[in-house]
Amino acid sequence: MPPAWEAGYAGRRALVTGGAGFIGSHVARRLVQLGATVTIVDALIPDCGGNLFNIADLREQVHLRIADLRDREAIEDLVCDPDFVFNLAGQVSHIDSMIRPVDDLELNCVAHISLLEACRRRNPGVRIVYAGTRQAYGRPRYLPVDERHPRIPTDINGINKMAGEAYHLLYHRLHGMRATSLRLTNTFGPGLLIRHPRQGFLSVFLRRVLDDEPIRVYGDGSQLRDLNYVDDVVAAFLAVAADDATVGEALNLGADPPLSLRQVAELMIEIAGSGRVERVPFPDDLKRIDIGSYYGDFARIRAAVGWQPQVPVAEGLRRTLAYYRRNARHYIAGDEVEP
Amino acid sequence: MPPAWEAGYAGRRALVTGGAGFIGSHVARRLVQLGATVTIVDALIPDCGGNLFNIADLREQVHLRIADLRDREAIEDLVCDPDFVFNLAGQVSHIDSMIRPVDDLELNCVAHISLLEACRRRNPGVRIVYAGTRQAYGRPRYLPVDERHPRIPTDINGINKMAGEAYHLLYHRLHGMRATSLRLTNTFGPGLLIRHPRQGFLSVFLRRVLDDEPIRVYGDGSQLRDLNYVDDVVAAFLAVAADDATVGEALNLGADPPLSLRQVAELMIEIAGSGRVERVPFPDDLKRIDIGSYYGDFARIRAAVGWQPQVPVAEGLRRTLAYYRRNARHYIAGDEVEP
Repeated sequence: MPPAWEAGYAGRRALVTGGAGFIGSHVARRLVQLGATVTIVDALIPDCGGNLFNIADLREQVHLRIADLRDREAIEDLVCDPDFVFNLAGQVSHIDSMIRPVDDLELNCVAHISLLEACRRRNPGVRIVYAGTRQAYGRPRYLPVDERHPRIPTDINGINKMAGEAYHLLYHRLHGMRATSLRLTNTFGPGLLIRHPRQGFLSVFLRRVLDDEPIRVYGDGSQLRDLNYVDDVVAAFLAVAADDATVGEALNLGADPPLSLRQVAELMIEIAGSGRVERVPFPDDLKRIDIGSYYGDFARIRAAVGWQPQVPVAEGLRRTLAYYRRNARHYIAGDEVEP
Repeated sequence: MPPAWEAGYAGRRALVTGGAGFIGSHVARRLVQLGATVTIVDALIPDCGGNLFNIADLREQVHLRIADLRDREAIEDLVCDPDFVFNLAGQVSHIDSMIRPVDDLELNCVAHISLLEACRRRNPGVRIVYAGTRQAYGRPRYLPVDERHPRIPTDINGINKMAGEAYHLLYHRLHGMRATSLRLTNTFGPGLLIRHPRQGFLSVFLRRVLDDEPIRVYGDGSQLRDLNYVDDVVAAFLAVAADDATVGEALNLGADPPLSLRQVAELMIEIAGSGRVERVPFPDDLKRIDIGSYYGDFARIRAAVGWQPQVPVAEGLRRTLAYYRRNARHYIAGDEVEP
């Protein structure tokens, strides 16, 4: 039986920010399948994950607007109309945030204040779901990490994403806006940015397998992570947006059981049918922002909307590898689809 | 006996950001008295509290540079040299932050990332003390509020100041920089901005007394606050900067016992020898961001550097009122001192 929220999207209007990106494009596709009228806004900022190939199959079915959330006129125009805003725009590289911290602040803070202000002025009743991150917790003090865990980010991106979430929840408290934040953990699937190695370990592992090179695991590879296949993350966004039970809250996603980085590497190699793991010492710049093991407690979202992951990691990896075997050129050589 | 840290500043070099502002100017003056070589940088952004009258008596004794922390060249030049950075620049109006959130972000986040980057590149060993705020805690869940209290700011300014502090502590963890944040509570004294009513209740009360108008207390005026006289806050900055015991930490200031807003109003009237209290209903826009009672636990800074307030509130108010009786025109009509 399909979940009850699926029926709620037919004929509704949704705006997906960062909708040409990895997760945003999947949210947009699912909304289209459910009969919603979808507008995608994406600035296609280099290296942020926006890739028109992600939505090549949707081009006839969505309205696409290339614009930056900081462009007040464009955004006020776009937010007037929708019932839902799925707010996935952002800069997600931890490494880049350390090299260009002000750029990260522009994309993860200024952009979201601008969006929220536009919504407040033009469409204060809109339902907003923001893509937060477990990165805000920093190095876990206990496991699994629940939503009350102290937030001491280990990089600029974590601080700015934490502020981005805080703006959303503040606009709920102050202006009654219907915002929820989901704190995403490691998400993978077709469309994950693999062009450069600054997007997290899953992207790096995947690229190594595709390039037929050994997967490098830092240290003993025993650090645990919880992995969500992108379809499950999409389901979380849609389930949460469909009712107001979680308005004003920030909720962890997660998966059970967690896997070690070495296990993930080995699983990927097993599924790919080739490759090997190479253990190397931890590079200094990564060691400084490494958080050890992380996995989240997702009891709150499960209790609120009945969400839990449906796609086993192995199955998700199979689909992901199959996708990149067919489409790698669109993710490695560059954006080959013209706007 | 003077505290031990006083001797440590003779012949040392200090940069005070926001040094033409209320607290910054007092930090600069004390440093000059202790024999330090002081540079003040202030952007004199309208309504942020910078006022050249605050440092009119120091003009021959400090190097003054009118510049914005976001001006990379100017700042790299200024940070090369000092042993200490007292980082007090910022936008401090909660109300303004709600009206112009992006401006607040520029002044409280972008500016500080820029400063930290400049220090990291040009003077990574410098000792930095940042002016944080108890505003980051939001509405207290328990009293007194200690440093582990959850941080759920009630306005944009609180979120951005929280991020500003987080950048400092992150630069310590990642780059070994010697930064500490002090979480200031309500600070008062000569130089407090009283030109507009958006700077907190002490500024508003003071202005009403000076204008011979009744002090309006919202609701029953029973909300508690801890008040620090500015000389005590200066002592906290200098005591903390003088050794490395608190590097990487964020520490509350505070005062004991807390006073109710009504008590503060009555004390001010008693000292002024005129005026009266008028009780009025809570205005909606302030009610939404009001936090109820607040007072902080300052045991950590006391244990670390022996700091505690020395100036009783009544004595502080006496000095403050006397100052404004003489100098009100420099704080109400505008900046009459030319750069």
